[in-house]
Amino acid sequence: MAAYISDTVCAPASGRGGAVALIRVSGPDTFSILDRVVRFRGGNAASAPGYRIKFGEIPEVDEVLVGIFRAPHSYTGEDSAEISCHASPYIVSRILQLLCENGCRSAGPGEFTRRAFLNGKMDLAQAEAVADLIAADTEAAHRIAVNQLRGQYSLRLRSLRDSLLEIASLMELELDFSEEDVEFADRSKLRALLSDARAEIARLADSFKAGNAIKNGVPVTIAGAANAGKSTLLNALLGEDRAIVSDIPGTTRDTVEETLTLGGVLFRFIDTAGLRESSDAIERIGIERSCSSISKADIVIGVLDALSPLETVRKDCREICSRLSPGTDLILVRNKVDAFDAIPPEEFPRFDRSYGVLELKYPAFGTYNLDPARLTAELAEYADRTFPEGYQVLDISARTGEGLDELRRRLSESRAGELCGNNATLVTNLRHYEALRTAQDDLGRVSDGLGHGLTGELLAEDLRSAIQSLGSIFGEVTTDDILGRIFERFCIGK
Amino acid sequence: MAAYISDTVCAPASGRGGAVALIRVSGPDTFSILDRVVRFRGGNAASAPGYRIKFGEIPEVDEVLVGIFRAPHSYTGEDSAEISCHASPYIVSRILQLLCENGCRSAGPGEFTRRAFLNGKMDLAQAEAVADLIAADTEAAHRIAVNQLRGQYSLRLRSLRDSLLEIASLMELELDFSEEDVEFADRSKLRALLSDARAEIARLADSFKAGNAIKNGVPVTIAGAANAGKSTLLNALLGEDRAIVSDIPGTTRDTVEETLTLGGVLFRFIDTAGLRESSDAIERIGIERSCSSISKADIVIGVLDALSPLETVRKDCREICSRLSPGTDLILVRNKVDAFDAIPPEEFPRFDRSYGVLELKYPAFGTYNLDPARLTAELAEYADRTFPEGYQVLDISARTGEGLDELRRRLSESRAGELCGNNATLVTNLRHYEALRTAQDDLGRVSDGLGHGLTGELLAEDLRSAIQSLGSIFGEVTTDDILGRIFERFCIGK
Repeated sequence: MAAYISDTVCAPASGRGGAVALIRVSGPDTFSILDRVVRFRGGNAASAPGYRIKFGEIPEVDEVLVGIFRAPHSYTGEDSAEISCHASPYIVSRILQLLCENGCRSAGPGEFTRRAFLNGKMDLAQAEAVADLIAADTEAAHRIAVNQLRGQYSLRLRSLRDSLLEIASLMELELDFSEEDVEFADRSKLRALLSDARAEIARLADSFKAGNAIKNGVPVTIAGAANAGKSTLLNALLGEDRAIVSDIPGTTRDTVEETLTLGGVLFRFIDTAGLRESSDAIERIGIERSCSSISKADIVIGVLDALSPLETVRKDCREICSRLSPGTDLILVRNKVDAFDAIPPEEFPRFDRSYGVLELKYPAFGTYNLDPARLTAELAEYADRTFPEGYQVLDISARTGEGLDELRRRLSESRAGELCGNNATLVTNLRHYEALRTAQDDLGRVSDGLGHGLTGELLAEDLRSAIQSLGSIFGEVTTDDILGRIFERFCIGK
Repeated sequence: MAAYISDTVCAPASGRGGAVALIRVSGPDTFSILDRVVRFRGGNAASAPGYRIKFGEIPEVDEVLVGIFRAPHSYTGEDSAEISCHASPYIVSRILQLLCENGCRSAGPGEFTRRAFLNGKMDLAQAEAVADLIAADTEAAHRIAVNQLRGQYSLRLRSLRDSLLEIASLMELELDFSEEDVEFADRSKLRALLSDARAEIARLADSFKAGNAIKNGVPVTIAGAANAGKSTLLNALLGEDRAIVSDIPGTTRDTVEETLTLGGVLFRFIDTAGLRESSDAIERIGIERSCSSISKADIVIGVLDALSPLETVRKDCREICSRLSPGTDLILVRNKVDAFDAIPPEEFPRFDRSYGVLELKYPAFGTYNLDPARLTAELAEYADRTFPEGYQVLDISARTGEGLDELRRRLSESRAGELCGNNATLVTNLRHYEALRTAQDDLGRVSDGLGHGLTGELLAEDLRSAIQSLGSIFGEVTTDDILGRIFERFCIGK
């Protein structure tokens, strides 16, 4: 145990409301303080073994149950206790007050987890996972946090760090021989190890986009012309599924965007202004935002209007495609297809849905290709875009719900959704991502140096920096400053 | 234990948010269900002794601590357990889902406390106190709930019921002798017992107003003319003390009115429209509401304007006094007295604060009596009202804070505040109040009957009804219907 944690802290650990509230106490004086505050029945807290529950009374306040945990077999690794009382704000504040009057200090944010880290109960990446685990509101985010909390994530980073240490020892060996000017025999082995480590670090760093998407939601932009039915589509997607979301207590989020969980993955929808040109200044700002939102999204649902003439649809599609960033998944949908069924046959002398060509005499339609495959091909040509083999515009009706199941399937099977769904180790933490990027740069220089025949001595510094960066992720070397920044994001009682 | 509770229920017991969440399980299958859901280390739950904490893992979900409680030594009196997990909505809902898949049923509102009552762990008044205790957000409300939860309240009602039983047995004795037409010797004892019981029941029923005020706040109406500074006064009273209120987590309330805790008693302030006559229809509605609010308040703060001519102040005071209900505490304050100091002496040739008479030449003031004692006497005369010995208008300035401490003191020492502060047994529950009123009516008839020389046989029915009413408070006789109505007001997990 880190010797300098000499004080005892307390904090409410459960949320507000409910029937029962939990108060955590941790530190060397836990039991003596408790014995001053609580009148226990059948022996005091100081003499109680760990993993026992003791019943007692806090005079004039409440009857309480106190869980006893003895160092090092506790969350923090210290002597600690959990007081369970009636969940009244008055009772909780009175008990905290009594604890503080008898020697406790109010714990800061994340202080229990910080103590757990300092006492060697978990490494830093695991400590950070505690906050992620509590915040996780989808299965995918939960899985990543559990994986990280259990230490699998750290294990992977440690083994990567060990590889770098092996490279470093090979280099040192070379250093020893360098005076004799002997070209070291194992330089090829060193190169192979380095290349493996760089590939692994690159993969981890690249996983940050997916990891971040899981934690905060995969950003999906719904784009298209002003009357294509984007908002109706968003409402239709949310409307049926919102009930599922609200079944889980506490998932309501304060974001202005709408979120939806599909296949255990959180999607964050951004509704946008229509893309048509406008002379209205305020509307133009909206359109600029749409364009920016399209370029930042992981997935774009491009909504085309089945009731627009083909020429307009082509133009709308090109508008969307021209703003996509590379690597963005585009799902093109043609909305309002239910309208086709409602049009009386005599209006369309050459209507043939099975063949797929509709030459509409109806003025608004013009000549229209009904077959999604043909439409897709035409749009690809016009937008100068290559769609994957088998890719096809999806016919939907936001109004009737036609095609929405398929749209949901495509969302969860999109590249971003797929990344979130698999079990690979994903980086979700910006601090870790930055450390990996630093290590990547360092190893790039080591690799370049090797290529240019530099001696181990010159390469060793960059290698040490890379090793240190990796170690900082699981907290091998930390400063109070770094710990302060990590734990200030925690809530009280964690 | 009531034999018909054959199922096992589960529910979240702690509030949303926080670091740790608690899930309660209770019923005969608690441990076998837990052993299916949790992989315990070191022996299963079924073989664990009570009052132990077991560590285990719910695969793919979380690591948990489980507190074991064995019948009858648990809150419900049944086998039960408390699962403590990370406070993520996802984890809580997954664990509840797993429990339900393995034989649990989701508990209804108050079901744990209902089981505690059915299993004889507490009587009905104690069970109701659990909800009150959790809702209590002031010291006074807390004290009443603790008193009721500990059973002192029930004890008092039981002893009252015992008195009635004694009266009943005396009457039965009389019945036995009635054939012989012997006037029973102990009728005087019977009368004395009955009179004591009636007085006690009347006192309890009358305490409901104070009890209710403690639970929901003592209603204080701030009344006065439109520009007397009522809202400024409310803000000044709240402004300095609000910080204290918000120090206690969770005390923020959703009421439209403002509340303030003084000396452990909750005051509920109702700001009102000014009382002056108005030709505006909407303003008149506001004034009508003010009048109604004055008549319903326990305490009225009548705000007079120090800058108004004496004639106006008299009229304002009479407006307020004419609308008071009997028994309402009136605290008269004269606001804006700081203005006196700001007026240049040359404006007031005959100003003499120590003597207390100010004949203002300043047109807005007229002739003004500065001395609060003289003002009080004058107002009393004009409003045709008798003030208690020593009663005096309080000079304040909502702007500078002058006199506010004294106003706070008067509030907490007012009759309503005093009632809330003492340790008498108070009725806070409408159901209990109604039962007491029924018993009161029944005993009234018994008493009348005795007076008219009716035989015990005729009186016995009313007496039995009174006994039953009292017994219904602590749940001697209940129906599912009554229990349903009581526990539906509880939250889930209680």
